[in-house]
Amino acid sequence: MTEISRVQVALGARSYTIHIGEGLLAAAGATISTVLPRCRRIVLLTNPTVDALYGGRVSASLQAAGMIVDVIMIPDGERFKTWETLDQILTQMLTLGIDRSSALVALGGGVIGDIGGFAAAIYQRGIAFVQIPTTLLAQVDSSVGGKVAVNHPLGKNMLGAFYQPKVVLIDLAVLRSLPAREITAGLAEVIKYGFIGESDFVTWLEENTDKLHALDPAAIALAVRKSCEAKAEIVAADETETGARALLNFGHTFAHAIESGLGFGVWLHGEAVGAGMVAAAELSHRLGRISQVDATRVRALVSRIGCPVDLPPLRAVRYWELMQMDKKTENEKVTFILLNKIGSAEVVRAVAFADVAPLLK
Amino acid sequence: MTEISRVQVALGARSYTIHIGEGLLAAAGATISTVLPRCRRIVLLTNPTVDALYGGRVSASLQAAGMIVDVIMIPDGERFKTWETLDQILTQMLTLGIDRSSALVALGGGVIGDIGGFAAAIYQRGIAFVQIPTTLLAQVDSSVGGKVAVNHPLGKNMLGAFYQPKVVLIDLAVLRSLPAREITAGLAEVIKYGFIGESDFVTWLEENTDKLHALDPAAIALAVRKSCEAKAEIVAADETETGARALLNFGHTFAHAIESGLGFGVWLHGEAVGAGMVAAAELSHRLGRISQVDATRVRALVSRIGCPVDLPPLRAVRYWELMQMDKKTENEKVTFILLNKIGSAEVVRAVAFADVAPLLK
Repeated sequence: MTEISRVQVALGARSYTIHIGEGLLAAAGATISTVLPRCRRIVLLTNPTVDALYGGRVSASLQAAGMIVDVIMIPDGERFKTWETLDQILTQMLTLGIDRSSALVALGGGVIGDIGGFAAAIYQRGIAFVQIPTTLLAQVDSSVGGKVAVNHPLGKNMLGAFYQPKVVLIDLAVLRSLPAREITAGLAEVIKYGFIGESDFVTWLEENTDKLHALDPAAIALAVRKSCEAKAEIVAADETETGARALLNFGHTFAHAIESGLGFGVWLHGEAVGAGMVAAAELSHRLGRISQVDATRVRALVSRIGCPVDLPPLRAVRYWELMQMDKKTENEKVTFILLNKIGSAEVVRAVAFADVAPLLK
Repeated sequence: MTEISRVQVALGARSYTIHIGEGLLAAAGATISTVLPRCRRIVLLTNPTVDALYGGRVSASLQAAGMIVDVIMIPDGERFKTWETLDQILTQMLTLGIDRSSALVALGGGVIGDIGGFAAAIYQRGIAFVQIPTTLLAQVDSSVGGKVAVNHPLGKNMLGAFYQPKVVLIDLAVLRSLPAREITAGLAEVIKYGFIGESDFVTWLEENTDKLHALDPAAIALAVRKSCEAKAEIVAADETETGARALLNFGHTFAHAIESGLGFGVWLHGEAVGAGMVAAAELSHRLGRISQVDATRVRALVSRIGCPVDLPPLRAVRYWELMQMDKKTENEKVTFILLNKIGSAEVVRAVAFADVAPLLK
């Protein structure tokens, strides 16, 4: 195994390291016992798909480090990221007699990380938590920064917490087992970091899309590292999203409405973010913030990575209703993240329905 | 209305003030709008009993301060401090369209404060939270320090968080509407602060039990202030219970087993703590930490305030099984808080069943 890079998330007493490399799954036990020396017992949360591929390797590594491992399995898919599944996980942990010196290791994609982190956050008022993300989307976004949650029929990620992991292990080798659709969904969040923060990275991405799709090792390692660095910087500046962290929601006001409106899991989160970024860029153009050329550039890169670029057909008033349920909504004013140029975004509150409606046809 | 004293809970960015006085319910609106200037909307969580007595007064005060108030009511009693009730509260908040600029005000006893604080902690990853405790137990203990939770069939307070309120309003006038049994339950936590931290306070309590039972204003004001100060000091030193905060659990290893074993709500929490402190003092004596005289002194004061002094009859192995489920248990070792003298306690791990069993007959 090879560690390629490390990214530090600087949050005082809650700081942690993201390890990025090839074959790091086999180092899980050694890494976790360094970070959590008193931990003797692990709950390994995963799903049957991931377990079949990687569960044995991670368990063996943890056991080799002297830990007792209990595996808790939840069904695969966003539609299981619910209050009921969370209850089942917590009840199983209590039945197993998991105590506060134990840790929960989330081995899987965003669903596993989000619900596993939330379970760790509230189990006996909080136990240690480790992220081993196995999708590109989870590696570049959801495993970093401590946002954990479950969905509610009335909205995505409506119940949750800010709860940081103790360490994140990103094994790039696992990406080779992912379907192309999952790579595309992950790349949506990668290009987001370029749009909101670094135009040079957008240019690099435009030139390297084919390599990324082919999982060229150097290109993927760079894209994952850049994404983690971008996220770590924003999270360190604003852990609980009172300011700059909201910029990470570029495309997400639309995306959450898409996901709630179609039913969780019909579109992958990254796909909804892709179409949402195109819509947000067009809204930015309509409001005179960016040129048509820049809006088209967003659309072109979203399309190039393989994401849908058009919003799915829900009625405009339904979109608006769903957007008003968004967590960023404050005193009934819907919030959007808009571009001021490629590489620079801004939180804009109180956009009028009349401005958004033409995009929702 | 008269503010009598203020106690500061020093937790850096999460610091807050406990206001203690007579008639403070009527100042809720003014106080909350000072602490949360951006808040325009309040969820007032309460139960039918408390609502009938005080709901109108608090709502009127909040409305007079320009806030929109929605009341959410849950049934009265510890047996409703559950995952299911929590889900109902959160779903109602989503249905009402409560956003992150809103606040949740918990008006009631420990159950309302614990479940309300937990709802505030996880609603959209956290909204502001205010405690207005209306029982003596909540005023001297559960409303201060940010421990929020619900029970689980497998144990008390097993799911929860550390989530601090923005302000605590203690109106001593409300104590006059409490049944004597509730005053007794609250006094159990008051005398606890003496046993674990200040022998002079124990002496004062021994001399003033009658005044406290009669709700003598000066005596009650002193007891509440001393209790809040003691708790604030311990919480400031150890917010998430990695050390000294565990001392607050004197009597609680037994108490939680009593409450789980009998069924939540059969004994009041304070009653279980009373009997639990007697057992913990006797265990301290058995282990050579305190004299028989001191153990008897604990029993006498617990009895004087009106609490049961004998453990309810569960089988010894059942007690032990329940104690092993306690959150303080680590690597299967049951933890007790034991006295080294009146006014000084210590966290003791790994007490053997053989030492505890004789107390469980």
